[in-house]
Amino acid sequence: MNPKKIKLLRRLQRLLSPGEISFDPSVLTQHAGDKWFATHQPDAVVLARSTRSVATVLRFAHRHRIPVTARGAGHGYVGGCVPSRGGIVLSLARMNRIREINAADFVAVVQAGVNTARLQQAVEKQGLFYPPDPASRADNSIGGNILTNAGGPRCLKYGVTRDYVLGLEVVLPGGDILRLGGRTHKNKTGFDLHRLFVGSEGLLGVVTEATLKLLPLPPYRACLALGFASMRAAVRSLHAILAVGFLPAALELADSFTLAAAYRRTRSPRLRGCRAHLIVELDGQTRSVRGEIRQLRALLAPRRPLFVQTAFGPAQCEALWQIRREFSYALRDTGLTKLNEDIVVPRGRLEDLFAFAARLQRRHRLAVACFGHAGDGNIHTNLMVDFQQPGARNRARIALDDLFRQIIAWGGAITGEHGIGLAKLRWWPRALPPNVRALHQTLKQTLDPHGILNPGKFLS
Amino acid sequence: MNPKKIKLLRRLQRLLSPGEISFDPSVLTQHAGDKWFATHQPDAVVLARSTRSVATVLRFAHRHRIPVTARGAGHGYVGGCVPSRGGIVLSLARMNRIREINAADFVAVVQAGVNTARLQQAVEKQGLFYPPDPASRADNSIGGNILTNAGGPRCLKYGVTRDYVLGLEVVLPGGDILRLGGRTHKNKTGFDLHRLFVGSEGLLGVVTEATLKLLPLPPYRACLALGFASMRAAVRSLHAILAVGFLPAALELADSFTLAAAYRRTRSPRLRGCRAHLIVELDGQTRSVRGEIRQLRALLAPRRPLFVQTAFGPAQCEALWQIRREFSYALRDTGLTKLNEDIVVPRGRLEDLFAFAARLQRRHRLAVACFGHAGDGNIHTNLMVDFQQPGARNRARIALDDLFRQIIAWGGAITGEHGIGLAKLRWWPRALPPNVRALHQTLKQTLDPHGILNPGKFLS
Repeated sequence: MNPKKIKLLRRLQRLLSPGEISFDPSVLTQHAGDKWFATHQPDAVVLARSTRSVATVLRFAHRHRIPVTARGAGHGYVGGCVPSRGGIVLSLARMNRIREINAADFVAVVQAGVNTARLQQAVEKQGLFYPPDPASRADNSIGGNILTNAGGPRCLKYGVTRDYVLGLEVVLPGGDILRLGGRTHKNKTGFDLHRLFVGSEGLLGVVTEATLKLLPLPPYRACLALGFASMRAAVRSLHAILAVGFLPAALELADSFTLAAAYRRTRSPRLRGCRAHLIVELDGQTRSVRGEIRQLRALLAPRRPLFVQTAFGPAQCEALWQIRREFSYALRDTGLTKLNEDIVVPRGRLEDLFAFAARLQRRHRLAVACFGHAGDGNIHTNLMVDFQQPGARNRARIALDDLFRQIIAWGGAITGEHGIGLAKLRWWPRALPPNVRALHQTLKQTLDPHGILNPGKFLS
Repeated sequence: MNPKKIKLLRRLQRLLSPGEISFDPSVLTQHAGDKWFATHQPDAVVLARSTRSVATVLRFAHRHRIPVTARGAGHGYVGGCVPSRGGIVLSLARMNRIREINAADFVAVVQAGVNTARLQQAVEKQGLFYPPDPASRADNSIGGNILTNAGGPRCLKYGVTRDYVLGLEVVLPGGDILRLGGRTHKNKTGFDLHRLFVGSEGLLGVVTEATLKLLPLPPYRACLALGFASMRAAVRSLHAILAVGFLPAALELADSFTLAAAYRRTRSPRLRGCRAHLIVELDGQTRSVRGEIRQLRALLAPRRPLFVQTAFGPAQCEALWQIRREFSYALRDTGLTKLNEDIVVPRGRLEDLFAFAARLQRRHRLAVACFGHAGDGNIHTNLMVDFQQPGARNRARIALDDLFRQIIAWGGAITGEHGIGLAKLRWWPRALPPNVRALHQTLKQTLDPHGILNPGKFLS
């Protein structure tokens, strides 16, 4: 770091509370990346304790053109909070207070650094429910969920993070603190500005606090897990469930590669010969849910599942979901590098997607494992790569190009819940028409004229 | 109209198809307002037949600084499409094609002028469901619903129009045609730009086409209607329903003034002495819904309702909702002018709101009738004014000031589903902090630098 830059950051240090800024190399390294592989060392890390500190940092950085990359729990999958151009990493991790849980208003007010699972447990104790359930919620912060508009299995019935954000406190470059939206469940006062920041991947402003909508906690949940001899039978079962008017909390599919890996890990005899796996979760009033599970069993019997497993109540459901979580670990056990692409297809393309993934596998001599939120069309398509093999890197790259080209041709989306970050930067120009990308640039320029926020991502 | 303006508009006429533009005084008058009382004559009406024509109008108007006020079915309640500064009314009424209903993707693609009720009927024939249900949906267009982010009773469970907009075709001033969002149910590609236009009241762009999310049609619905001797008992019943984990499709309340008027109209003996009325609607699988209605009856029995009415299946439910619709007609029967304010309070403030309305009534010697979407905290608070009475206009004005001041103090919203339009313009400066209003202006300036779109509303 050049002496001028050091001098500048020392000046910032004097504007903050003691301990809020760190230049310690180990701290810098800890804040150089997320769960994706790429990293870049920042020049300083600010562990802000208050919105005022966040504003101080942004005012200073705006004036002196210093890159600022905000960061929640650092658990993203696409390198979204890698400080690609150095500068300051602005961590919200210490702003982790749940300010209010209001059981009459059905609202929670939380600082950006609050852990998602912790919030869920806290509201559930009061009979309330915060539905968004990204798989890694035990490691996520609400702020990170908001900036990526995080999803999860339950989003089929309950929607994504955006649908629960009623209001935000946002700090803009320059240091202006905005209180957007409010705490009512409906609001038509002006533009829907706070939701412009939801999913903005830290390019437009820094979210410091959120007012979240809560629902009544459904008193009961139950699951069905079914094995099938073919993916076609599983996908058609999924369509059959929707066709009779069910909107389950979750509809999750896994393919044969995933299941074979899971079999090797768990030795569960059920998974032997099983080529597709479907989980259906229902929630609601106890008697209704129990009756509906019976109804679904009867509905799906003619589809000849290899097995049907039921789980009643939270403990059994969690055990069943644990199997689903094992899928991820099982893929890791293969020793291959998993390139997890959270693509989305229109729901009618599910069968085509699985068939395409099978062809991709053969064509590029790479294993492909698909599983995920099939109800939403949001399938995690994992290219399993052995980077030791000659030419593997190049084959993976071409295979990904093939995949994304096909997804775009189907009217799909290259990312459903992880965001663009660094991982999908190469496909950004193909994902949206030029004038739509230009409008993104215009808005970025309007809100962040010096481009200090999270530079090096999809708008710079 | 001055000769220069006439000459200009004649030039525009040559750029459009025959019959797309009209200067006929009766057509101008038909397009001078909506359901609110204020009107203003435009200089021309364009009844666009295609997105290309919309782009032609916006390019021309942008170049020549001509005001353009877009209009759907003209059925708004706040004067939102009154062309306050004259110029062109751009009607989307002729762009009324349902382009696609896709039962596999659970998506509908519709032009902006499509009637909301017609779309709902069309999708329901295919076992699909478009939930947003503004009371006047038989007279609304989807485009208008999108620009006001329309709600309705079912929004408690299903969310508002915004939650169903997956993609939009939008034309900007200057004539650029943008295809925003897509057709997948999840999408994290870039910013959530299309939803910035949802609820924008025609100030940022003209929506020509929408891709809407559909749900599986619930096969069954049933309602409970309950009369209570006090509003407190009704509100507490509402809270009790939520407390045991129900999220009904609708929870609607009506107050004693409304019920007295309804009694005078319908002579329904049930309504005599009834001081509060609660409707609960459930939907889902037949057996579950029937069981849950029994469960709710048992839950609410200790609250001593004056009567309990049940409705099973669509025909009985419609009949029950018809009574709710009679409330509006009954208020009209009073001969008083109804100032319908669609305010929202945090749900915990419902009892306070009804008590405040009663005080408002006494203080200003004006009748106040409250009914609406209590589950959302979105109560239509109707000041019933006899404008013949001396001083009534002034009293109404002061009463509305009192009402909005209190709503804002409670953290409520001055509009939940109608928008600001002209009707709430006076309270706009008090509804949001100065820097949030400034950000609205900045975005307006960015997208519509010459301020041609719907001028005279909350940003000009």
